Amino acid sequence: VEPAGGAAERRIRVGIGDDAAAWQPSRSHLSVITTDALVDGVHFLSEKVEASAVGHRAMASNLSDIASMGARPVLATVALGLPASIGEDWVLDCYRGMQGLAARHATRIVGGDIVRAPAITLSLTVVGEVSASRLKRREGGKAGDVLAVTGPLGASRAGLELLRRAAGFSSQIDDGDRETAAQAYAVPEPRVAEGRWLAASRNVHAMMDCSDGLSIDVDRLARASGCGATLRQVPIAASAAAVAVAAGDDPMRYALEGGEDFELIVAVAPRAFAHLARRFERRFMRPLPALGSLDEETGLRIQEGGALRELTPRGWDHLA
Amino acid sequence: VEPAGGAAERRIRVGIGDDAAAWQPSRSHLSVITTDALVDGVHFLSEKVEASAVGHRAMASNLSDIASMGARPVLATVALGLPASIGEDWVLDCYRGMQGLAARHATRIVGGDIVRAPAITLSLTVVGEVSASRLKRREGGKAGDVLAVTGPLGASRAGLELLRRAAGFSSQIDDGDRETAAQAYAVPEPRVAEGRWLAASRNVHAMMDCSDGLSIDVDRLARASGCGATLRQVPIAASAAAVAVAAGDDPMRYALEGGEDFELIVAVAPRAFAHLARRFERRFMRPLPALGSLDEETGLRIQEGGALRELTPRGWDHLA
Repeated sequence: VEPAGGAAERRIRVGIGDDAAAWQPSRSHLSVITTDALVDGVHFLSEKVEASAVGHRAMASNLSDIASMGARPVLATVALGLPASIGEDWVLDCYRGMQGLAARHATRIVGGDIVRAPAITLSLTVVGEVSASRLKRREGGKAGDVLAVTGPLGASRAGLELLRRAAGFSSQIDDGDRETAAQAYAVPEPRVAEGRWLAASRNVHAMMDCSDGLSIDVDRLARASGCGATLRQVPIAASAAAVAVAAGDDPMRYALEGGEDFELIVAVAPRAFAHLARRFERRFMRPLPALGSLDEETGLRIQEGGALRELTPRGWDHLA
Repeated sequence: VEPAGGAAERRIRVGIGDDAAAWQPSRSHLSVITTDALVDGVHFLSEKVEASAVGHRAMASNLSDIASMGARPVLATVALGLPASIGEDWVLDCYRGMQGLAARHATRIVGGDIVRAPAITLSLTVVGEVSASRLKRREGGKAGDVLAVTGPLGASRAGLELLRRAAGFSSQIDDGDRETAAQAYAVPEPRVAEGRWLAASRNVHAMMDCSDGLSIDVDRLARASGCGATLRQVPIAASAAAVAVAAGDDPMRYALEGGEDFELIVAVAPRAFAHLARRFERRFMRPLPALGSLDEETGLRIQEGGALRELTPRGWDHLA
C-alpha cells in the first residue's frame, strides 16, 4: 500500500469542484474502471450498521473489483442519494468511512453528486491502473489449474447473521469469533496489495474477487475460461463456523453462498502453485489455500467424503 | 462527432462481464471523469417521460460535463436501481436511449451494476480524454472577458412546464414551439463537438456547462475565476418565450433559472471574441451569442433598460 499523497495524488490535475475531474494516466499502463451501487435495505441496513461502515463497505466492494484485475486504484467518484430524513452527520460519517479506506489504498475521491432519493443509495466508481502485461481477467484459466483463494470464507455472512438475530443469540458465541465476524461484515478489507502481487506472476492465469458467493463466483471464472471446476477443500473462517453452529446452520453454506468476503480467487498453473503459495505466505503472513481445480469437464462439482456431487452455484442475487 | 467503432473503441481492452473494464489512455492526453445520479420523481418523471428519454437525458448530462472540460468522451459505466414494478421493457428502452446518444459521440458503455431500489435511480459515470494543453476549467476567466453561450436558453424549462400542465394548456402554443420545447427537455443535445472546438482556442479562458441555471452557473464560473459578472443580453429560446407567455410566466426566468439546457458558457478574451464567434458560426451554423462579461467587481448583476441591478443566483437546487 502506498501512502496517500504519493504518485497517484500528483497525477490528479483537477479534483472536486469543476465539471469533471482530470488525471494524467501513466504511459505504460491500462486504466480500469468499475462501478457499484448499494441501496439501504437491499445491500445494507442503515438502522443496524454505522454510517462509516456503510461508506467503508461501498468503497471496499469497488476497490476489490479493481484489485481483482491486478490493478492499483487511483481515484473514485461518489453519487449519493439521500432521503430528507438523513442528516449531515450521517453523510459526514459515511464519507469518513469511504475516505479512510480509500486513503489507505492511495485512492483519492475526486468528485461526485448528492441527490434526493427515497432510500440511501451509494453509487461508487473507482478507476485504477495496471501495466498491460499484468492485467488479469476471469478468462484465461486452463483445465488443470489450481484454484486458490486469499483467505478463508463465510465470515461476512456470519456477521450479517449476528445483525439479523437478537442480542441473546450472539452471547452464545466466543467474543473473538463474534468480533471477527462483525468486522468482516462491517469493514471488510479489499485485497489490493494481494491482487497486485498475484497479478505480477505469469502463472496466475485468471483472477476475480469473491463478492457474490464462492460457488457462483468460481462457476463464473470457470465458464469465462471455458472450463468446469471442482471444489475439494473449501477454507471456512473459524468465526463463520462458530456463528453457523450457534445458528443451527451449515458452516459450508456460509462459505459457498455467503458472498461479500472480498477474497480473491485465482487459477494458477499447477506446477507453479506450491512455490507461489510459499512466496505469498512469506509476503502476507497468511496462507494461500488451494480449494480445487479447473477441469475440462464443464459444470461445478464439490468433493464430499470420497465422492463428487454436482453443486448448484448459489450466492447473492442482485435482483432477488 | 466520430463514428462509434473508431479510435476510442479500439483503446477499450475489456468491456462488460469482467470485474472492471480496461482501456488504454492515449499518451499525450489527460483523462477526465464525471458522475451524475438521476432519481425518479426528483430529476425525471417516469410516468410522463419515455424510458428512452430518461436514459438519453442521463447520458446527455454526463457527456455535457465532459464537453465542458473540452474533452472527448470515451466510455461510460451505469449503475441502475430498479423497483420490482419496473419491467424488462423499460430497462431495455432506457438503455437504448443511453446507448443511442453515447454511440453518436463515440462513447462505449463498458459496464455497470443493476440493483433493487425503491425508486428508479440512474448513476452514470463517463470518462473522457483531452490533451493537457486544452483542458478548460471554471477557473481561468479574467475580468473583462466576454461571456458567451453556445445557444439560447430556457427551452428545457419550457418543456418541463408542458409536462406539468394539462393537455389544454399546450394547445395554445404553436406546434413548432411546443415540439422544440418538448424535445429540449426530453432529449437534450450535449455540446460535445462545440466543447472540443472551443477548447482548442487559447482565447477561451474558462468553460462550463449550463446545467443548473444560467444565473447560478455564471456566478459559479465568475467566483471560480475570482471575478464578478454582468449579464447584458440573455438569449432566450423562442420556444421558451412562447411557453412562458402562455403560462403567464416571465420568459427571462426560464432562461436565467431553468437549467438543463446543457449549453456551454465560455469566458473569452475580449479582443478575440468577434473572430471566434464568426468562426464558430461558420463551423456550427449557429451563433455564439455574447451575454455579458466578467468584472473585477465581485457579485452578479443584470442590465435592465439602462440600469444594472444585483441578480440573485437561482437554479436547480439538488437538495430542494
